[in-house]
Amino acid sequence: MTDSEPAAGPDLAERLARARRAAGDAGLDALLIAPGADLRYLTGYQALPLERLTCLVVPAGGEPFLVVPALEKAAAEASPAGGLGIEIAGYAETEDAYATIARRLPPGTRNFAVDNHMWAEKLLAFQAALPGAQAALAGDVLSVLRMRKSAAEIDALRRAGAAIDRVHRRIGEWLRPGRTEREVAKDIADAVIAAGHVTVDFVIVGSGPNGASPHHEVSDRVIRTGDPVVVDIGGTTADGYCSDSTRTYAVGEPPAAFRELYEVLLRAQTAQTDAVQPGITAEQLDAIGRDIITAAGYGEHFIHRTGHGIGMETHEEPYIVAGSKRPLEPGMAFSVEPGIYLPGAFGARIEDIAVCTEHGGERLNLTGRDLVVLPG
Amino acid sequence: MTDSEPAAGPDLAERLARARRAAGDAGLDALLIAPGADLRYLTGYQALPLERLTCLVVPAGGEPFLVVPALEKAAAEASPAGGLGIEIAGYAETEDAYATIARRLPPGTRNFAVDNHMWAEKLLAFQAALPGAQAALAGDVLSVLRMRKSAAEIDALRRAGAAIDRVHRRIGEWLRPGRTEREVAKDIADAVIAAGHVTVDFVIVGSGPNGASPHHEVSDRVIRTGDPVVVDIGGTTADGYCSDSTRTYAVGEPPAAFRELYEVLLRAQTAQTDAVQPGITAEQLDAIGRDIITAAGYGEHFIHRTGHGIGMETHEEPYIVAGSKRPLEPGMAFSVEPGIYLPGAFGARIEDIAVCTEHGGERLNLTGRDLVVLPG
Repeated sequence: MTDSEPAAGPDLAERLARARRAAGDAGLDALLIAPGADLRYLTGYQALPLERLTCLVVPAGGEPFLVVPALEKAAAEASPAGGLGIEIAGYAETEDAYATIARRLPPGTRNFAVDNHMWAEKLLAFQAALPGAQAALAGDVLSVLRMRKSAAEIDALRRAGAAIDRVHRRIGEWLRPGRTEREVAKDIADAVIAAGHVTVDFVIVGSGPNGASPHHEVSDRVIRTGDPVVVDIGGTTADGYCSDSTRTYAVGEPPAAFRELYEVLLRAQTAQTDAVQPGITAEQLDAIGRDIITAAGYGEHFIHRTGHGIGMETHEEPYIVAGSKRPLEPGMAFSVEPGIYLPGAFGARIEDIAVCTEHGGERLNLTGRDLVVLPG
Repeated sequence: MTDSEPAAGPDLAERLARARRAAGDAGLDALLIAPGADLRYLTGYQALPLERLTCLVVPAGGEPFLVVPALEKAAAEASPAGGLGIEIAGYAETEDAYATIARRLPPGTRNFAVDNHMWAEKLLAFQAALPGAQAALAGDVLSVLRMRKSAAEIDALRRAGAAIDRVHRRIGEWLRPGRTEREVAKDIADAVIAAGHVTVDFVIVGSGPNGASPHHEVSDRVIRTGDPVVVDIGGTTADGYCSDSTRTYAVGEPPAAFRELYEVLLRAQTAQTDAVQPGITAEQLDAIGRDIITAAGYGEHFIHRTGHGIGMETHEEPYIVAGSKRPLEPGMAFSVEPGIYLPGAFGARIEDIAVCTEHGGERLNLTGRDLVVLPG
């Protein structure tokens, strides 16, 4: 927590006001926000995603209001949304909530925007209830707000980063030859909770050739002496912020070819985290790592972008990817996670969350990046 | 498992073929299925929901194919989808997967249907890539397939039901005066996993007045002697099927008014589970419980529908709700969960998963339904 935001939590009213202004500036008549990270960001309401519609309506020219099934009304009122002073309207089981919302939008509504993760069934129902209007994505305006994080949000991400670092520091307790990836992942998942997360969002344990598939999760493969093992883990803390950090371990002495690859990767990832500063573009940051990896002859094996923004979702704006001319700004938080993958052999990835500050980059993951060789 | 389905798993090819025929019968040119329960049902592929598009394309008049980001290709091929003999096409980070799919759809595609939970950003991208075509919901055809469960699926739900029953039988270990709802819920969550689920989907512990809000989850309220406590819990098993069962407990002797209410509720819920049989409609089943509760004077306090279907999602078709003239058929599985809620005082709900069989109803939750009074 900092002086600028009270310990009571984020200034939700200010976020709502900003969203309303941004909608107006974008020529949108209203934002329609279903349960998910956008709703939690704007109102503090962590609503269940249900087939019944729950929807925050933010008209550019009027007061926001929240529409919820009657049986969710008490829960909505008990959430931080209840302290916002906005109307919370319950609707009965047999009422058409889409028609109700359409009637309450400003007359002549031509453009509405829905949150990017709203379910198709809900978007199609809004399109049917607003036949003359055009649908757009609220993410285009909300991501701009969400990606510029306050000091309190960065602090929340720092705590999440410290939590996942505690898990990486304990990897040696679980990762050893003779165990399956699944067994190791189970222990890691328990530790992710014990370290201070409320949910385990993903646990990737990619040993030997499985490490060459960037999104391999876990398998029953038995870990063997000499295996490189990619461990990519993350969770969400009680205040809703996500962690995500990857380290690649060796279980016993790995092949010489792996050490060579790892040194190149480490140079690339270090150069990238060192280069974080206001004004550098996402594609420039991506290129810094890619150029080093390509010069070393591994270019075709770095098969994904450098990173993704992180906050109340593990993957959000800004994406650190070729083609993105977005300049980094203070308050942006994102992963820096180059990887090199040799199909059939092994792979490696090193990932830290980095924050762009006025003075450069700050890493939120602080476990060592040199190759850790565990007992084999 | 039964003789009709091999232990190797469900007949995914048959499901895909049925989906293709159903799409054609519904006048749809293609189904577009993003990660989620529909994709897992049709291909066995439990894909991560990512901002990058993963999409199963089921043309009514052609062969299905799966489009995945290049870095997910190995994972998709390693999943049961890899054994289906369908094309799995990877696309590069900078490729427009929506345009690629639009190009591959049959010429003259006028109607496409997306899975009900596809993210709005993906639906809007498909609408933009297929400007002349009309979007509909694949759920309208897939829910008909998914709600008629095979013997193997019912067996999976029976195992899930037995798992959650094991948790309810242990409630007395954790639920006692002086503890908070949150503390109790934490113990329950651990037990949900220990009992044979891979995820905890929800844990509701609604004590005293909190029990009067049907979707209250947990709070820091300290449980007191005499409190009625609604405990509604569920998880998902390794083969992807969900459990969901509610029991209402009393911690010490509850108020007489509560016992009276509970007896009415028990009569209603029992009458409803006893009435399950082929041909009865969803609204008739709803009315059986509602009539009993209304006759006893609590009608206005039964503020939700009787139940929801359950399978690979906790909430799916068929909904047991007023206005639904859907006749029950053998193979349908759904919750029967009437409740009575007295605002400010207490509430009660009793919930079993029931299956409609050719000979009547089968309850998949078998813990006792009489009020359990725990030591207060």
